[in-house]
Amino acid sequence: MAVDIFRGFKEHSVAEFFKKNRQMLGFTGKIRSLTMVIHELVTNSLDACEEANILPEIYVEVKELGEEHYQVTVKDNGPGIPENYIGKALGMMLAGTKFNRYMQQRGQQGIGGSGCTMLSYITTGQPVRAISCNSGLRKEYEISIDLKKNKPIVNKLLEEQTEEHGLTFIGQYKDMKYEKSNKSPFEYIRRTALANPHAALTFKEPTGEVVVFPRSVEANPPKPYEIKPHPLGITTHDLLEFAQHYGGEYRKTSTFLQEVFSRITPNKIAELKEVAPDIDFEKPPTELIWEDAEKITKAFQKIKWIAPPMDSLVPIGKNQIEASFKNIFNPEILVVTERSPKVYRGGIPFMVEVGIAYGGGVKDAGKTGEIMRFANKVPLLFDSSGCAITETVKSIEWGRYNLKNFEEEPIVVLVNFVSVYVPYTSAGKLAISMEDDIEDEIRYAVMEAARGIQKYISGKRRATEIATKKKVISRYVPQLANDLSVLTKKPKEEIEKKLIEIIEKKYSGANESEEEEDELLQLEDNKNNEREIEGENE
Amino acid sequence: MAVDIFRGFKEHSVAEFFKKNRQMLGFTGKIRSLTMVIHELVTNSLDACEEANILPEIYVEVKELGEEHYQVTVKDNGPGIPENYIGKALGMMLAGTKFNRYMQQRGQQGIGGSGCTMLSYITTGQPVRAISCNSGLRKEYEISIDLKKNKPIVNKLLEEQTEEHGLTFIGQYKDMKYEKSNKSPFEYIRRTALANPHAALTFKEPTGEVVVFPRSVEANPPKPYEIKPHPLGITTHDLLEFAQHYGGEYRKTSTFLQEVFSRITPNKIAELKEVAPDIDFEKPPTELIWEDAEKITKAFQKIKWIAPPMDSLVPIGKNQIEASFKNIFNPEILVVTERSPKVYRGGIPFMVEVGIAYGGGVKDAGKTGEIMRFANKVPLLFDSSGCAITETVKSIEWGRYNLKNFEEEPIVVLVNFVSVYVPYTSAGKLAISMEDDIEDEIRYAVMEAARGIQKYISGKRRATEIATKKKVISRYVPQLANDLSVLTKKPKEEIEKKLIEIIEKKYSGANESEEEEDELLQLEDNKNNEREIEGENE
Repeated sequence: MAVDIFRGFKEHSVAEFFKKNRQMLGFTGKIRSLTMVIHELVTNSLDACEEANILPEIYVEVKELGEEHYQVTVKDNGPGIPENYIGKALGMMLAGTKFNRYMQQRGQQGIGGSGCTMLSYITTGQPVRAISCNSGLRKEYEISIDLKKNKPIVNKLLEEQTEEHGLTFIGQYKDMKYEKSNKSPFEYIRRTALANPHAALTFKEPTGEVVVFPRSVEANPPKPYEIKPHPLGITTHDLLEFAQHYGGEYRKTSTFLQEVFSRITPNKIAELKEVAPDIDFEKPPTELIWEDAEKITKAFQKIKWIAPPMDSLVPIGKNQIEASFKNIFNPEILVVTERSPKVYRGGIPFMVEVGIAYGGGVKDAGKTGEIMRFANKVPLLFDSSGCAITETVKSIEWGRYNLKNFEEEPIVVLVNFVSVYVPYTSAGKLAISMEDDIEDEIRYAVMEAARGIQKYISGKRRATEIATKKKVISRYVPQLANDLSVLTKKPKEEIEKKLIEIIEKKYSGANESEEEEDELLQLEDNKNNEREIEGENE
Repeated sequence: MAVDIFRGFKEHSVAEFFKKNRQMLGFTGKIRSLTMVIHELVTNSLDACEEANILPEIYVEVKELGEEHYQVTVKDNGPGIPENYIGKALGMMLAGTKFNRYMQQRGQQGIGGSGCTMLSYITTGQPVRAISCNSGLRKEYEISIDLKKNKPIVNKLLEEQTEEHGLTFIGQYKDMKYEKSNKSPFEYIRRTALANPHAALTFKEPTGEVVVFPRSVEANPPKPYEIKPHPLGITTHDLLEFAQHYGGEYRKTSTFLQEVFSRITPNKIAELKEVAPDIDFEKPPTELIWEDAEKITKAFQKIKWIAPPMDSLVPIGKNQIEASFKNIFNPEILVVTERSPKVYRGGIPFMVEVGIAYGGGVKDAGKTGEIMRFANKVPLLFDSSGCAITETVKSIEWGRYNLKNFEEEPIVVLVNFVSVYVPYTSAGKLAISMEDDIEDEIRYAVMEAARGIQKYISGKRRATEIATKKKVISRYVPQLANDLSVLTKKPKEEIEKKLIEIIEKKYSGANESEEEEDELLQLEDNKNNEREIEGENE
């Protein structure tokens, strides 16, 4: 009986899995699928350029080939891809340089580029075309995936000399639709430009119209670097895996720990020995068994550590968000906050920056309660519900900030989440997983910015109230001056002048302080900091 | 330069991917991870029993071994797993019988069981223990996964004779927490019992308490069967893949089409020939190229088809939902609707059933605006936002049904989505992708049930109003009777009796009809049906 049921037992490749479940890569819906293709390719281009210290110059083209049939071209000036890697980079899932690296980067899975190749193949039967220029050679390929095996099929078409460098990806897609909506390739590129001022982006629409988003900063941002994992961020299994993988290079466990993880010093080893006296830190790391590793990770939790290196995180930057927002929205008021880096899951560094634009151009554009989400400077256009950013921003008591009807106020809230590892909810990388530390930090950052907006709004409201009172009272001045003049026999003009002076003086007072609220925010901030790793000077 | 960057280029297994991204399997959070383990195992047990026509009898135990350290046991009376499949079934991702089958089943990916093995290994370093009884033998194994290769590691411990059949899975987990909340294993099993009345479920909690959910139906539901894909549900790439895979068995494309797909008859082949005159339906299917396949799938869209076989779908059933709801909530009013099957994405059959319980026990239990989601009878406890069920239920204008403050009303809405393929948003299978056809159908089903609730509420309200009016008027009867008696000289008792009769008659009228609204709903229903495949008799 059982054998019968297992007749159909099969093994499948990860490529087949994502072919059947393309919605998990975000390839769902005609408009969204097209935007997602561009998202994956632009993301890869930006990462490649920055990795190679090249100022990014990216050209994106969507060309209509027929009904619901498009050709997407993304060309960058990055380092290109060497011949022995091109197939795997674009025609094999879960292959790449980005997986398992503690470093801030846009891509992190090694799925996106190959996903675009797969989608071209399953919607048009066509391979994609890739042109890679590097080391003085321009090579052109046709690339496809053998879905059953998750293996690349590469066909080299051409090789010639060149002085250029960079990668061009050309793929054909069917069952898609181009639209200039809020979820469109256009909006995606606009937001990418907003968050990446060092990149020059050019977009050619199917209509032939060319939109240029010029570079507004003439240098790449500081390069994020790869960090060693922090002791508080790793599990027993991680430690064993590191011991098996790198352990052979070290004679003693103590040396291995100091070399492979961050913040482990000889002093810390001494402390670890005290809290885990039955561990032999002199034995080779390759001889660690589960029980040893478990005792070591438990010991990690018992001693104090300084936080992981935080300068590995590179935000968009306060000035840049301000400049971009002014450019795009020209709001009445704009507040940007950038909080110091924190850690989540014990040892993974991250930081949150927030910009809030209110009124003015935001109102003119008809935007209300809009949330612009970014993760490592990549715009997240889809799956807003279930994302830590959306849920947190919506959960804020906006009434406290004179913005009770958030959804109807002329307000745009930008949140950028920066980390060496972004905990996406799915392989499509569209929403950030809801983890307490992350939500708290987003909340505080948004509240901080909201307070700036509130100060402005209540200041404005107070000014209006004062102006109204002044106007009402001033109305009585001529009559009062007249009456007083009759009573006191003094000249009416003099009295009138005096009265006006009194009124002016009365209503020119500075705004009352808002210290109470300042304290409140301070309190929240402290509460949050308690959750951080306790700092210490070594 | 480029070469430097690619120094770190690596290939990864799908097991490594899900180890790094365990949140994509739903293994996130201490409480949720534990529930998800039980979810995956119970799901597999139910599928196995039903597949083998065995009335399911499932025992689940959560035992506390230490701080945040638990042992999970799930034992079923299913067919067991033969020795040559046990490793792959529980120690290899993307392997199983369920992938790529057009059949209603709970699991569909071949990830869940191996995910539980992986999680045991990465949180405790321990293999899981599996005991399979089948073909008269009881075999006990230790199973683990080589994550780097996504290959099972199997160690057979024991083999003896037995008369039993079934599978027992025992796994250890750390960093978890048992709680009796709304997201707990207990709630998961309670809801599983609700939707699977033919299953006997026993749950032993860490406290030692044993809860039994007895079987309330003494037969398995009709067995869902595998259907052939419908011509409207397949893409060009699918068609080519089928042609490559099964094409060798057929001499002519026309035979291949009739055998491999549903609803293709010789008459339909004739029609296809008319709309695609340049396709040679006599040539071998293995010789079809992309252009041919594209022309054939386009031709599929041009002719009329009868819908795919819908009896392959097996809902919970109206009577059963009613019985379960009465059992659990004992509500004041309960309405269950079951709509006829529809298709989405052109040719994938699905259906929606809805139960709404209002007031009474729901109120007593303090439940307000609760949405209970099921997919193929599997409870979905997590990721409610972003799920087609939640979003659709919330988008309904509840005011129309006298339930304006849905979130605060004493109401529970159960929605079960049944299909041969559930489009989950991620590998964790926690939310249903938001597709128009699906959302529409959920909306109509919920509206239909809501209308029943509304009728009851407005009937109740009307009854209260009538009672109040009667009471007010009745208050004047003695005085009026007295006055009239004086005026007419007739006995007061007689007049009073007459007046009471008049009042009774006046306020006993039937409720006014609600035909207008009936028409409205009818209209929506028709609109929806237009979206279906046009039926035809062949």
